[in-house]
Amino acid sequence: MKNLLQNPNEISITGAIWIERQDGTDRFLGKGRIELLELIVEHGSISKAAKAMEMSYKRAWDLVNSMNSQTLQPLVITQTGGKSGGGTLVTAEGLQAIDDYKVLQNRFQAFLLQENQCLK
Amino acid sequence: MKNLLQNPNEISITGAIWIERQDGTDRFLGKGRIELLELIVEHGSISKAAKAMEMSYKRAWDLVNSMNSQTLQPLVITQTGGKSGGGTLVTAEGLQAIDDYKVLQNRFQAFLLQENQCLK
Repeated sequence: MKNLLQNPNEISITGAIWIERQDGTDRFLGKGRIELLELIVEHGSISKAAKAMEMSYKRAWDLVNSMNSQTLQPLVITQTGGKSGGGTLVTAEGLQAIDDYKVLQNRFQAFLLQENQCLK
Repeated sequence: MKNLLQNPNEISITGAIWIERQDGTDRFLGKGRIELLELIVEHGSISKAAKAMEMSYKRAWDLVNSMNSQTLQPLVITQTGGKSGGGTLVTAEGLQAIDDYKVLQNRFQAFLLQENQCLK
């Protein structure tokens, strides 16, 4: 491949992975959804997480609903009232989803690193 | 991951890889560009290849120009006149680009297959 190029050292192999329904009707997890979950952990709020990603509040809710609708237990829960005045929490299942995705993402990065090192 | 899901057997890991400039200013090759090259081989015409992909002629030309501008030798050449009345050819370098990408794509598919087999 590199023998074809004017600037062979300026290119690299990159990519993305995600987890989706096999029938293609919906995604379950991808880089954006994981970033959203992490920002909900950080901010305790879907609206603040959406803002941090420059994403609309509606879009963020749609993503959260998509994830929650596919799991046995919700990944994100919204509490109203109570002593703390409510808030949004990423559940233990949500934290596991983040961790599992990151393990997968790390192996994908290792794959890309190896392919880039071998790229001729 | 699967332990979280209502329908654990309906999900799979998928993804995409592409080759781009490290500074992010342009892509060199990806699935769509390879499909375009293959269709130019098949049809001997950028306009017919574009039509087969439901892509505008302008978009197809832009992609061809992007690839050609990054290589030492063009991947696609357009001949005008001559006995055959002109036509568009994918060069030996273009054919190599297709082959090299497919080898990479096959290794990526093997990676995804293995990850899907191990997905818990």
